[in-house]
Amino acid sequence: MPARQPVAIDAAKEGVKLGRLDDFLGFRLRRVQNSLSGNFAQAIASYGLRSGEFTTLALVAANPGISQNELAREVGLDKSVMVLIVDDLEKREWAFRGRSKTDRRRHSLSITPAGQAELDAMFAALERTEGIVEQGFSRAELNLLHELLDRMHALCIDAAA
Amino acid sequence: MPARQPVAIDAAKEGVKLGRLDDFLGFRLRRVQNSLSGNFAQAIASYGLRSGEFTTLALVAANPGISQNELAREVGLDKSVMVLIVDDLEKREWAFRGRSKTDRRRHSLSITPAGQAELDAMFAALERTEGIVEQGFSRAELNLLHELLDRMHALCIDAAA
Repeated sequence: MPARQPVAIDAAKEGVKLGRLDDFLGFRLRRVQNSLSGNFAQAIASYGLRSGEFTTLALVAANPGISQNELAREVGLDKSVMVLIVDDLEKREWAFRGRSKTDRRRHSLSITPAGQAELDAMFAALERTEGIVEQGFSRAELNLLHELLDRMHALCIDAAA
Repeated sequence: MPARQPVAIDAAKEGVKLGRLDDFLGFRLRRVQNSLSGNFAQAIASYGLRSGEFTTLALVAANPGISQNELAREVGLDKSVMVLIVDDLEKREWAFRGRSKTDRRRHSLSITPAGQAELDAMFAALERTEGIVEQGFSRAELNLLHELLDRMHALCIDAAA
């Protein structure tokens, strides 16, 4: 190991350089996704939701009776974080925990009419947020982007298997 | 509020439905990005790194003297999480904290030769991981995907401003 330098130079004032990261698709995807979701987060900031809470509520709406473990896996969050999200959704009376008919130890989630109304409002905000960005593209370009991303997702799943 | 139902139905056995999320680009981007980064995470699992640690090291390499706050902002992580990442990079002797010449209260980060060697090895793993997926696309398709994502990123930044 070299001797540690006590003084290092300052980062370039003109902004952070991406270096080799700039060559990788994964980085470009993450950057766009972070920006898009940041714009949406700002649009629904007044709700004061946790990260992942909107997606969780949308999945509960689409899958009545889904379990907390399934939600954690699908949203890509730790089970302990999902418990906090579901607690908050219950406190807001947007969703409720029931008991599974087939396995009584398993909590199953469902959305309330109030939760559905708020979810609809947030989906409208998401449509506006994405709409502003999509205006910069033709319908053909957007379809192509969807197709490329879906093909890539399928290849990722194959590569992982 | 409606009365809470004590028993909810089970989620469909055939898998979780995406519902309205499936119509949104942000969701498709996140899904592909999660899969791609999951494959890479598996490839470098033996290092036992924290989430964001590879990206942090890559940014330190590209920006000698960068501050912890700049890293936190650029990687999109909380400052307290960035402290843990930088602590770990120092413990591994992959990076070292120095004092900024212009602001002595500000820690500035630099990579060590050992850190650079490990970073090169991880970039090689990233090239392999993305290469497997990129084989399913023509060069023209990949260039188009990069161009669409970069245009979208620029539009997101404009929309947020």
